[in-house]
Amino acid sequence: MRPRSGTRGEKVPTAPSANPAVDTAAVTALLERGRTLSTPVLRAAVDRLAPPMDTVAAYHFGWIDAHGRPADGDGGKAVRPALALLSAEVAGAAPEVGIPGAVAVELVHNFSLLHDDLMDGDEQRRHRDTVWKVHGPAQAILVGDALFALANEILLELGTVEAGRATRRLTTATRKLIDGQAQDISYEHRERVTVEECLEMEGNKTGALLACAVSIGAVLGGADDRTADTLEAYGYHLGLAFQAVDDLLGIWGDPESTGKQTWSDLRQRKKSLPVVAALAAGGPASQRLGELLAADAKSNDFDSFSEEEFATRAALIEEAGGREWTSQEARRQHGTAVEALDRVDMPERVRAQLVALADFVVVRKR
Amino acid sequence: MRPRSGTRGEKVPTAPSANPAVDTAAVTALLERGRTLSTPVLRAAVDRLAPPMDTVAAYHFGWIDAHGRPADGDGGKAVRPALALLSAEVAGAAPEVGIPGAVAVELVHNFSLLHDDLMDGDEQRRHRDTVWKVHGPAQAILVGDALFALANEILLELGTVEAGRATRRLTTATRKLIDGQAQDISYEHRERVTVEECLEMEGNKTGALLACAVSIGAVLGGADDRTADTLEAYGYHLGLAFQAVDDLLGIWGDPESTGKQTWSDLRQRKKSLPVVAALAAGGPASQRLGELLAADAKSNDFDSFSEEEFATRAALIEEAGGREWTSQEARRQHGTAVEALDRVDMPERVRAQLVALADFVVVRKR
Repeated sequence: MRPRSGTRGEKVPTAPSANPAVDTAAVTALLERGRTLSTPVLRAAVDRLAPPMDTVAAYHFGWIDAHGRPADGDGGKAVRPALALLSAEVAGAAPEVGIPGAVAVELVHNFSLLHDDLMDGDEQRRHRDTVWKVHGPAQAILVGDALFALANEILLELGTVEAGRATRRLTTATRKLIDGQAQDISYEHRERVTVEECLEMEGNKTGALLACAVSIGAVLGGADDRTADTLEAYGYHLGLAFQAVDDLLGIWGDPESTGKQTWSDLRQRKKSLPVVAALAAGGPASQRLGELLAADAKSNDFDSFSEEEFATRAALIEEAGGREWTSQEARRQHGTAVEALDRVDMPERVRAQLVALADFVVVRKR
Repeated sequence: MRPRSGTRGEKVPTAPSANPAVDTAAVTALLERGRTLSTPVLRAAVDRLAPPMDTVAAYHFGWIDAHGRPADGDGGKAVRPALALLSAEVAGAAPEVGIPGAVAVELVHNFSLLHDDLMDGDEQRRHRDTVWKVHGPAQAILVGDALFALANEILLELGTVEAGRATRRLTTATRKLIDGQAQDISYEHRERVTVEECLEMEGNKTGALLACAVSIGAVLGGADDRTADTLEAYGYHLGLAFQAVDDLLGIWGDPESTGKQTWSDLRQRKKSLPVVAALAAGGPASQRLGELLAADAKSNDFDSFSEEEFATRAALIEEAGGREWTSQEARRQHGTAVEALDRVDMPERVRAQLVALADFVVVRKR
């Protein structure tokens, strides 16, 4: 399969880079700094919610269990907060300047998780029952709404011109997030989705908010729109790389690491990148896969499929080239992301750290 | 029952004013102007939504029917857009300056209707099936989210300092709206709700956004925060008056006018003002009502209750004084709202129009 051009009209380089060697110590320190600086502010923001929304949100974030007892839950990888703090440093500001941006982006991300899990009927997230399973659909809707409003509140109460610009970028990203979820839902009912449609959907669902995370700190630190736009290009392509890896993990990931079931995305009939790429590739395996998935869509026994039946589908996807293409796509998007950094003037240390985070995103196992 | 003090620490006058004579021509012209100037901008904003969200939203607003055919639906009373345009004139600006504010407030209002109807399981609104009934719960969640995001987008793309201030006020109002819905849901599961709790909930659900409608045009027109706050006091108390009238119509309204079932709020076991006031009043009718409602809460036959059974409950609410108290409460809040206007310097014509709208709110039949 030939490499495809990016969705923003930029050419994706034809030769994907090799899997990068990750500076693990640097990445660990960056993720840890993002978590350490943003979590207390995030918790204080959530504490503003009226009961019982504060409790429901605390459950969602993994700070308490379903019985209200303190928990030390898996809060996710925290890539976005790490990026938002680095983003402030791009503009020459202290990392702390990016904190309200980091918190606002995390609030929007979690607003979308709460609503998407309910819309998609997903019962598990980060190894735990989802909010709608534990607290009911109404609380999932309501607390999602509250987190979205809180995101704007956190930024706008800064009262600066920069905060207004940052909120506008966050709003644009949120609209794309919602567009992406609308596309995701509509694709579920369609037999065929093109690779381009899949990339557009993933750009909306994952790329836009990651892009915002990478520009929001810089905007709060006084960066101009051109700098912010270029940082968003890095974040957008990083998001597409991130999602390509997610799509690989959604089929071939180790359940111990991902916290999801085996063949998770296949069980949910997701038209993720490896699937649509395999279907678009042509050839006998591609054709056989298409026939199987078309039959699956009409099958009443799908929910009782055995491990072997999913393994057969995964093997066909791989045989048709969907796995390899997606893996190359992750590296292509990684390459485009890193290239964008050359167009922004920033301290060499900050650039190296942004590259290290990009490297981490494509080699991660969870 | 004694009159109560307002929830913002202001004293509500002890003697409610008599029902005002409404300047109907002035009110009709104001509502018409609000609709005429804001609807095209609202429609253009909704047109930005990706399919199928644009269609779902157009159905919600009554612009098309369930089959996608153009419709001339009941878009509501449009009190908020009328107020937002007048609000700009308070600041000495042209009414048009208030249009983005009017549209943003309408978008937030309709975001909350979409989500609340789903959370509450309400199947009818404005004489039509609600969005979740026609297009499913996922679309109701998604389009609600999209309208909320669009509200911020419409304001922030103005790119001015005033737009940032306006968005901050809208965000604060939205958070209160969400708090009010959380209270409303939690009260459904409680046997007793105090009059104060009911007023606080109604202040959040109805007062906060009406308050924002009355300040947002002025803020966009350059008014200072003190002026905006005083205008919000007018809007907040007007909202409470509006809701008190809504609560009366929810029990004793004419279904032909309201578009709701007879005894609508009783059928939904709503702990609205007349009910909580009647329960708090004491005396034999109050006590009998309390016993009946406590039994109703446990009854399995509630859904098959006859007209007479609801009529009995309505009669007890009236006998206990709940209807009269709520009616007086509407006039007290009206009085407090109109008084607040004296604390803002504005053209006499604008003041008279704000008074006329306040008068209309307390005498309306739908």
